[in-house]
Amino acid sequence: MSRVINFSPGPATLPLSVLEEVRDELIDFRGSGMSLLEHSHRGKDYEAVHNAANADLRELLSIPDTHTVLWMQGGATGQFAFVPMSFLGGGVADYVNTGSWSKKAFESAKFYGEPRWAGTGKEGDKFVRAPMTLDLSADAKYVHLTSNATIMGIQYDAFPDVGDKPLVADMSSDLLWKPLDVSKFALIYAGAQKNLGPAGVTLVIARKDFIEQGAKDFPEIFQYRYIAENDSLQNTPPTFAIYMVGKVLKWVKANGGAAGMEARNRKKGELLYGLIDAHPEFFRCPVEQGSRSVMNAVFRLPTEELEAQFLAETKAAGMVNLKGHRSVGGVRVSMYNAMEPENVAKLVEFMDAFRKKHG
Amino acid sequence: MSRVINFSPGPATLPLSVLEEVRDELIDFRGSGMSLLEHSHRGKDYEAVHNAANADLRELLSIPDTHTVLWMQGGATGQFAFVPMSFLGGGVADYVNTGSWSKKAFESAKFYGEPRWAGTGKEGDKFVRAPMTLDLSADAKYVHLTSNATIMGIQYDAFPDVGDKPLVADMSSDLLWKPLDVSKFALIYAGAQKNLGPAGVTLVIARKDFIEQGAKDFPEIFQYRYIAENDSLQNTPPTFAIYMVGKVLKWVKANGGAAGMEARNRKKGELLYGLIDAHPEFFRCPVEQGSRSVMNAVFRLPTEELEAQFLAETKAAGMVNLKGHRSVGGVRVSMYNAMEPENVAKLVEFMDAFRKKHG
Repeated sequence: MSRVINFSPGPATLPLSVLEEVRDELIDFRGSGMSLLEHSHRGKDYEAVHNAANADLRELLSIPDTHTVLWMQGGATGQFAFVPMSFLGGGVADYVNTGSWSKKAFESAKFYGEPRWAGTGKEGDKFVRAPMTLDLSADAKYVHLTSNATIMGIQYDAFPDVGDKPLVADMSSDLLWKPLDVSKFALIYAGAQKNLGPAGVTLVIARKDFIEQGAKDFPEIFQYRYIAENDSLQNTPPTFAIYMVGKVLKWVKANGGAAGMEARNRKKGELLYGLIDAHPEFFRCPVEQGSRSVMNAVFRLPTEELEAQFLAETKAAGMVNLKGHRSVGGVRVSMYNAMEPENVAKLVEFMDAFRKKHG
Repeated sequence: MSRVINFSPGPATLPLSVLEEVRDELIDFRGSGMSLLEHSHRGKDYEAVHNAANADLRELLSIPDTHTVLWMQGGATGQFAFVPMSFLGGGVADYVNTGSWSKKAFESAKFYGEPRWAGTGKEGDKFVRAPMTLDLSADAKYVHLTSNATIMGIQYDAFPDVGDKPLVADMSSDLLWKPLDVSKFALIYAGAQKNLGPAGVTLVIARKDFIEQGAKDFPEIFQYRYIAENDSLQNTPPTFAIYMVGKVLKWVKANGGAAGMEARNRKKGELLYGLIDAHPEFFRCPVEQGSRSVMNAVFRLPTEELEAQFLAETKAAGMVNLKGHRSVGGVRVSMYNAMEPENVAKLVEFMDAFRKKHG
């Protein structure tokens, strides 16, 4: 069938041009007589892919020399464990609560010390904001936050000031949605499958002197230091996933870089939230202005019956995966970097017509 | 260029028909209007892929109901840590030494208890066999061995008797090379990138009552039990890698199943070792008869100069990645399931001509 508009929260839509390139070189990678999938991670062909992905990410985010880039496996859920394993050491860490993902990170940290909540976006029974005022503890080993909460539709635009505490951020769903001052972070991690590529690789950007201090009382494969020393080649990396992230990075470069992404994403956000704000009696977004996610917009319609009808009709119109997470219901519009603004415009037009009919 | 014959030790050659299928459906997966790479792991399209891969692996290896199949990340190196983390608990475990990979597994286990060597394939300064006689300790929590040592070219054909001790095997480079009595193993793990598919996914076959006993004093993401309970969908799995393993499994089924693979592999081994044994003065294989790997044959030529010349000439003839591991030198012929017997025959013909010229 023709290409659908895929609002999936992840794995998510990819640039069509990237998929076409992958298809075209799938059997014979750049004249090497074999697929990239068959290339040794120790060979020069893969090495070029690996190094280009590193260099392009560094360039796109202006990553300073103080920071290193790692390509890991296991997703954000793996990082929920690796971070406290390396840096908690029985001590205290400050976590910021913006919903399910922060809670999972918090629960995982309990095995290695005493995480505490330094802030919450919850008000009553709902998460409504990305908290900027935090109650930091003097002895916290680090402060952990989730830059974008995919389920709750809450995103940090600016980040809270944590003084000289190492700031650790799960940016799985919005890394590279706009320019970022990487120097403010001790460690950033991001599963690739939302904003950066396919499932199967986790990007880490870490301050070198921070990971150098990490604990050593567990196997090297869990130590950021060791992975950095080996340029992520200590064992076989997920070569194809890294190759695809590399292609997505080239696509970002060709589309204005991080600033270009921000312009695209702001435009999508304005289109969607513009309609929501114009008709708050029909489209109810629980999230406060200023904390609304440009990556995942969540809203409710007047009744669950209308929500079911909306999901059925959008699907019939070729706009899929708009159902909200099972824990919150309603509608969720995921519109990561690769989502074309014109597709969001199409959805917004549909939403407005739906409102006129049923509002 | 035309397709080369790729003897890479991993990531390794894949069936051309599998690559062609992947290419043909890369943009539009089975009429869904999007790529498999863009499908949510919670959707029905991916679910069908996931379930088929599970079912096909179970069928191909006649996996009994006592055992479960898991799809993990992190490679064998991750498993080197996960196994002792779950099952060692400060106690003793028996490890069998067949070279670099067993040593890495052993070193990793030290963080969780007291691994000891229960057997070694080393004689003098070389690894020469897969030891069948083991010195097991009464209190070992498990026995760990590497079924095929890719660097040393040593493989278990039959396995040693470990009585009622749980047997754990790293089968990263030979799972499914022939039929297997899975019931003899408490846990099998295998990075996919040699015999089963691309890099980025690790298969685990585990006895349910064994993993049920695993420790719980660390995050759930490292607990086999938890992954089993969630059918490997506790977080986003490496969907594309699992999809490709699924395609390779279909290819195995279409080529006679595990018995068909054994026939192919035995044929390749006989061709190669037949020539080596006929001319032991020219082709020196350090490994004893009975322990020679059918997956990775290693041998030396009379001089390092001849080895360099051999590698250059084979490469020029379109046969690549034949260089032995940097730690042992010489020549290594990796010929996993997907390597066509006719390609090994071509190499053997070349080897014999080379011998006639230089012997």
